[in-house]
Amino acid sequence: MSAPVEVLVFDVFGTVVDWRGSLIRQLAGHLAPYSIEVDAGAFADAWRALYQPSMEAVRSGARPWTPLDTLYRESLDHVLDRFGLDRVPLAVRDEINLIWHRLDGWPDAAVGLAELRRHGFCCALSNGNLRLMADVARHAGLVWDQILGAEWSKAYKPQPQVYLDAAKAFLVPPERVLMVAAHNSDLEAAQALGLQTAFVRRPTEHGPTQTTDLEPTGTWGWVVDDLHGLAHSLAVAT
Amino acid sequence: MSAPVEVLVFDVFGTVVDWRGSLIRQLAGHLAPYSIEVDAGAFADAWRALYQPSMEAVRSGARPWTPLDTLYRESLDHVLDRFGLDRVPLAVRDEINLIWHRLDGWPDAAVGLAELRRHGFCCALSNGNLRLMADVARHAGLVWDQILGAEWSKAYKPQPQVYLDAAKAFLVPPERVLMVAAHNSDLEAAQALGLQTAFVRRPTEHGPTQTTDLEPTGTWGWVVDDLHGLAHSLAVAT
Repeated sequence: MSAPVEVLVFDVFGTVVDWRGSLIRQLAGHLAPYSIEVDAGAFADAWRALYQPSMEAVRSGARPWTPLDTLYRESLDHVLDRFGLDRVPLAVRDEINLIWHRLDGWPDAAVGLAELRRHGFCCALSNGNLRLMADVARHAGLVWDQILGAEWSKAYKPQPQVYLDAAKAFLVPPERVLMVAAHNSDLEAAQALGLQTAFVRRPTEHGPTQTTDLEPTGTWGWVVDDLHGLAHSLAVAT
Repeated sequence: MSAPVEVLVFDVFGTVVDWRGSLIRQLAGHLAPYSIEVDAGAFADAWRALYQPSMEAVRSGARPWTPLDTLYRESLDHVLDRFGLDRVPLAVRDEINLIWHRLDGWPDAAVGLAELRRHGFCCALSNGNLRLMADVARHAGLVWDQILGAEWSKAYKPQPQVYLDAAKAFLVPPERVLMVAAHNSDLEAAQALGLQTAFVRRPTEHGPTQTTDLEPTGTWGWVVDDLHGLAHSLAVAT
């Protein structure tokens, strides 16, 4: 029998919001004046492919804690170069970087999160910095009890303190915290520290040909298709 | 002409919630089994009188950062002794300390805050720790964009970093942050750092015979009677 859940913490990119679809929808308008044809999906994927490597310098200690806004902005320069778009001016690059602040929620996100708030405190536990997450929350209609995660902990998932700080801030043991994510690796890190786990299937996060995280690869407490499903499962369990 | 406000930060104890009335209403039930007659108002005032001194040890650096829950709990022991209530058991003392987590909002608080969220990000900037503030938010129906303040900054107002960290987290200069408080001293500290200021009259925070903070003592940007009044003033100004 699991301990009752008091705090739910959520991965956001991919789990709550559709970063890839949002990038594709918004990139075209920004790049149109500089490009005859850019594959927005390939551009989004190339940009996101630099996400983990860019955080790794911080995780390893080679670089002091740096907000994700800055890491995305640096990665963007590399991607523009690679796509032959080095003529895009600085001001436009800054604008493009702000697409990450206007990501759309998955269709179930806003209402599902409101349902889940009946089961406990619901907090973002993302690698995004506070302002990024606060803008996304407003844009996507998400109501969080608190934005925890990278800027709160000055560390990047899967570094342990990001998960443990959530329990600590809410004055509960880790087993009363439920990590909700569409990524098995995030749940592995959380479970190893004693958190409960819920896997949300998001089979098109990486587009129609996604091959990763299609199914749970660990023994997670809940496996659901969306946030409504998780709210329903928690209601049945209590 | 002032800069547009992007972020509103709120003192909470006294400005948004009626801590004294809430303590008085809830203390009686806890103390009844141990006391024939305790003046709940005097008890609340004695407890709160230890608030500033207890934080001073942290501000001075004599003590590492310690959450307000702990400081209140320590102060409670002193107050119980002083009121001849040393027979109150530990478990009951812990329960009494949690009254601070169930403070009622002033009548205008929940709706006024919702109105103010149309004008910018609205964040708690309290000396209360995160869990305390999160519980109060749920209890009083307050929706914050983020709980900043003491635990975010690991410092206590009026230490400068508490105010400056709010601007930093939201990636705006201090003049785009509006400090909302019923206490002139809080606004003085904020104004000295470049924040905008709004004074909310709460003439009964300290009970019917209050003598302090009845009127503004500085040149504040706004002076209002409640949060509705501030929302109205901001709407007129834009």
